[in-house]
Amino acid sequence: MENMKRTATCGELNSSRVGETVTLNGWVHRNRDHGGILFINLRDRYGITQVVIDEDASAPLKEKAKELKFEYCIAVVGIVRRRPDEMVNKDMNTGEIEVAASQIEILTKCDVLPFMIDEKSDAKEDLRLKYRYLDLRSFSMQRKIRLRTDVTFAAREFLIGKGFMEIETPTMIKSTPEGARDFLVPSRIHAGKFYALPQSPQLYKQILMVSGFDRYFQIAHCFRDEDARGDRQPEHTQIDMEMSFVSKDDVFEVVEGMMSHIFDKTLGVKLEIPFQRLPYDDALNRFGSDKPDLRFGLEMKTVDELASKSGFNAFKSVIAEGGCVKALVASGCAGYSRKQISELEDAAKVYGAKGLAWMKVGESGIEGGVSKFFDGIADELLASLEAQEGDLILMVGDKWNVACTSLGAVRSKLGKDLGLIEAGTFRFCWIVDFPLFEYNEEEQRWEAAHHMFTMPQEQYLDTLEENPGAVKGDLYDLVCNGFELASGSIRIHDPEIQKRIFNIVGFSSEEAENRFGFLLNAFRYGPPPHGGIAPGLDRLVMIMAGENSIKEVIAFPKNNQAYSPMDDSPSLVDEDQLKMLHIKLDMPEKEEES
Amino acid sequence: MENMKRTATCGELNSSRVGETVTLNGWVHRNRDHGGILFINLRDRYGITQVVIDEDASAPLKEKAKELKFEYCIAVVGIVRRRPDEMVNKDMNTGEIEVAASQIEILTKCDVLPFMIDEKSDAKEDLRLKYRYLDLRSFSMQRKIRLRTDVTFAAREFLIGKGFMEIETPTMIKSTPEGARDFLVPSRIHAGKFYALPQSPQLYKQILMVSGFDRYFQIAHCFRDEDARGDRQPEHTQIDMEMSFVSKDDVFEVVEGMMSHIFDKTLGVKLEIPFQRLPYDDALNRFGSDKPDLRFGLEMKTVDELASKSGFNAFKSVIAEGGCVKALVASGCAGYSRKQISELEDAAKVYGAKGLAWMKVGESGIEGGVSKFFDGIADELLASLEAQEGDLILMVGDKWNVACTSLGAVRSKLGKDLGLIEAGTFRFCWIVDFPLFEYNEEEQRWEAAHHMFTMPQEQYLDTLEENPGAVKGDLYDLVCNGFELASGSIRIHDPEIQKRIFNIVGFSSEEAENRFGFLLNAFRYGPPPHGGIAPGLDRLVMIMAGENSIKEVIAFPKNNQAYSPMDDSPSLVDEDQLKMLHIKLDMPEKEEES
Repeated sequence: MENMKRTATCGELNSSRVGETVTLNGWVHRNRDHGGILFINLRDRYGITQVVIDEDASAPLKEKAKELKFEYCIAVVGIVRRRPDEMVNKDMNTGEIEVAASQIEILTKCDVLPFMIDEKSDAKEDLRLKYRYLDLRSFSMQRKIRLRTDVTFAAREFLIGKGFMEIETPTMIKSTPEGARDFLVPSRIHAGKFYALPQSPQLYKQILMVSGFDRYFQIAHCFRDEDARGDRQPEHTQIDMEMSFVSKDDVFEVVEGMMSHIFDKTLGVKLEIPFQRLPYDDALNRFGSDKPDLRFGLEMKTVDELASKSGFNAFKSVIAEGGCVKALVASGCAGYSRKQISELEDAAKVYGAKGLAWMKVGESGIEGGVSKFFDGIADELLASLEAQEGDLILMVGDKWNVACTSLGAVRSKLGKDLGLIEAGTFRFCWIVDFPLFEYNEEEQRWEAAHHMFTMPQEQYLDTLEENPGAVKGDLYDLVCNGFELASGSIRIHDPEIQKRIFNIVGFSSEEAENRFGFLLNAFRYGPPPHGGIAPGLDRLVMIMAGENSIKEVIAFPKNNQAYSPMDDSPSLVDEDQLKMLHIKLDMPEKEEES
Repeated sequence: MENMKRTATCGELNSSRVGETVTLNGWVHRNRDHGGILFINLRDRYGITQVVIDEDASAPLKEKAKELKFEYCIAVVGIVRRRPDEMVNKDMNTGEIEVAASQIEILTKCDVLPFMIDEKSDAKEDLRLKYRYLDLRSFSMQRKIRLRTDVTFAAREFLIGKGFMEIETPTMIKSTPEGARDFLVPSRIHAGKFYALPQSPQLYKQILMVSGFDRYFQIAHCFRDEDARGDRQPEHTQIDMEMSFVSKDDVFEVVEGMMSHIFDKTLGVKLEIPFQRLPYDDALNRFGSDKPDLRFGLEMKTVDELASKSGFNAFKSVIAEGGCVKALVASGCAGYSRKQISELEDAAKVYGAKGLAWMKVGESGIEGGVSKFFDGIADELLASLEAQEGDLILMVGDKWNVACTSLGAVRSKLGKDLGLIEAGTFRFCWIVDFPLFEYNEEEQRWEAAHHMFTMPQEQYLDTLEENPGAVKGDLYDLVCNGFELASGSIRIHDPEIQKRIFNIVGFSSEEAENRFGFLLNAFRYGPPPHGGIAPGLDRLVMIMAGENSIKEVIAFPKNNQAYSPMDDSPSLVDEDQLKMLHIKLDMPEKEEES
């Protein structure tokens, strides 16, 4: 094709190029015969150019043009000319010109398409994934993958500028006992032994701090053998970071700077920094979630005192048992039907609420639902909630956590239903002061809420063992638009504190040695105080692209069953291959695959 | 450590900062008591600062300072002051100043070191790898990892600037039959099926071209289950690239631009571009290698004609059988001993030569070795080889390939022995016009020299089947200082040509479908002409750092047995874990591991 190589892309020609002879290479996006004049919309990554075969073109040229079908890959030689005024398309870069073809060469042909290359494809997901190469041709997919490229580079550019070193950690690492979600790789050289794919570079990035690298990052591939549910992928990518000699404020500053740079450079959006910091308790109390969507208000309030004074026994006993009653005012929703209220209640129940109490604010005060129980204290209630005529008041009484998250789910649903969320806005916040431990009711023991290397906040150091439930950790989440974007912490560098944590979660020194031996060894050699974070790249780009699934921003995702319809992976392999790896199949008896 | 956080690094203080009170964080690199004055060399990633505890310092401060041992991680508060004139060290950034300590805090202690943190460690490799976190603390390792970071970012910067998109391809892909070097990953969800780790993103990057991304790159992790030999790693990194609508000149231009940018930005070295292009045949004829080291001359010559006229029957019969005689002049080596010549012969024999013929050029012409057979044609020989008194002439007669490569090995050895290689120089070249097919004598069939998607050069299209051995491919290698840095090719986009290639290598359509089905499917939908290349990052950085092993430029390499002494991987895993993955061990009977 040497003599038909492009001299211009399909996105660059405009009226300043009129008169030039150009060669274009690209795909037949659309073509039509318009009263003997043939039009071809020729597409490449850069845009679309209209190619015209005039009525008086040579017969062979016309013949060739008539052969063309959708998605043929072709080369066109022609002269750039101004379009007739009535054909100018101001919405296109190339909308002022067209190329009058003098030569067309078919580079390769295209079979009948399984779906049209178009902005709005309603092809089923598995069909799109099977023909991912065609799906990716749409401008919509090209834009999203382009955004991912740009976001990734902007992140690197910022971090490198701040003195971070990008260091590759291994993909084949030690499998740790209880690593139930590890993907394993059998070793051929070391019979009977296995590597694991990293769920994250956590231990290695901490090792890099012990090595004195000071500021590390990596756009890291992470692997987790998740059960197929929701929007999960067996592999995902994170912007993995770690810093030495820092407190959480330093981590926040870097992440805020990086996010500002990314959003400004790729979307032209200026983020407000620093991001708001919300203590975990406040986030639950006010928004009913540790990943609150701050694009709308609808804040919740605690009405324990009023609820105790009410005649509503359900609330009174909840409070007597140490629980809590949360309330939310849905402005102007007094007209909600039973059905609408019942849908809100369903949302609450997902988080464990036994019911959703409600009352309306009518002309003459509260009415309906549980209003009768609040008869004597209606004014007080309305004042405290700042509720007005026409509003709907919603309440949940339960254990603090259940009351908050259940009413939080109602808040989320209302935010969407009432259209309170402005598209294209991004509201970040830090959630801080997380509890360090969570009580595992089933196993009757404390466990680490995040991971076992998280530093307890200093003021709790004396009382760790006394009251683990009260201990807050130097632990933080980055949240955007209701999604958790990152988790991070300041790590423990003091072996004594580390031992106490292991003790509290009931971790024997053998277990600790077995799971984290090489990190604990490294910590014997003067580790620096350090901390880090790891924003998820897939989710970040998904939010930026306004999508709801990370599959939309991954070039070759697996489906929800961790299967790729395009290349049929995973697939069967030869027995010889397994033999070489010193393994054989051990199939579930009744479900042998055909 | 909030109140002891650094206000300066150990690399930044100089005489402009005299008088400032600073806090430093770092490691005790060296410390000494000098007549009651204590000196600490405090180290971090950025440099070393001399900390002084004066004779009149407080007793508690002196006590603390005396507690310090190598590699304790400490914080120091003190005043920057000018060093006494006789103590100024012009070789250090911080050599004009010292910090007079007023406060020292031990952040963490350090056990006795297995080896000193130093520039020149002669610790055994496995010990270095076991304590990699300590090995990485040396300035020498820090520099190499820093160089890798910088090279990687410079590559990205250049390619992004040229309109390339970095796109992540999957790490868990389809295992292909005959994928003997594939690492496999058993699937839990799909019992009995396996993913493979990619040996390269080859098929996926070609798919991306079918998708219209036009210019793709990725700093890609690749996995190959190699036999433990030489300087191999189970995972390596390549700068993977692919471009649409291009010829090899376009690929060369991008790679030359990228290398120039990388060398200039990271080493300040200006590369001469364009790189020399050497046809494969020339490279073998002149330098005896398809990865010639061009940092020195010592070119070989063909002396078939003279050898036929000589009285040396070994040469005459080689030529009669279609072989070839190659000669090399080692300037000034007439004094070489039998032993030295015999060492050169050993080098030749590695590549299959039966012997190394030699003669010296003395005062009165050629002498010794095979000189007597060249009696009548001595002058002609000397003239043709431009050999002079004091030179040593070396010759190999054999099949062309054997003669070239054997004498090429002699050339390489001489280059090193004679000190012809200037350190810190980089000589790149392109090797072009490679044969497309190689004949596999064992299996008595043609096979692809590179891979089956390489485009034959246009002039051979008519005669592919007639004479496969003569066909040159659109195939190229990038060579630097005698190392192959990259292989690439223009790919076949025409299904008819692809079929012919499969036929020639004896690939049935079932096999083709089975191995490359999803790429061949994609090629039914208008693939663009495309080509690419993939420079190895590890080797590039190794060459730039002047090292001989890629382990020196990988943060956490495996040893030559694909084992990591630091984290003990690969390792045994629980049977339960295997059960979940539907596999069990199938150990070699007589070598069960303890």
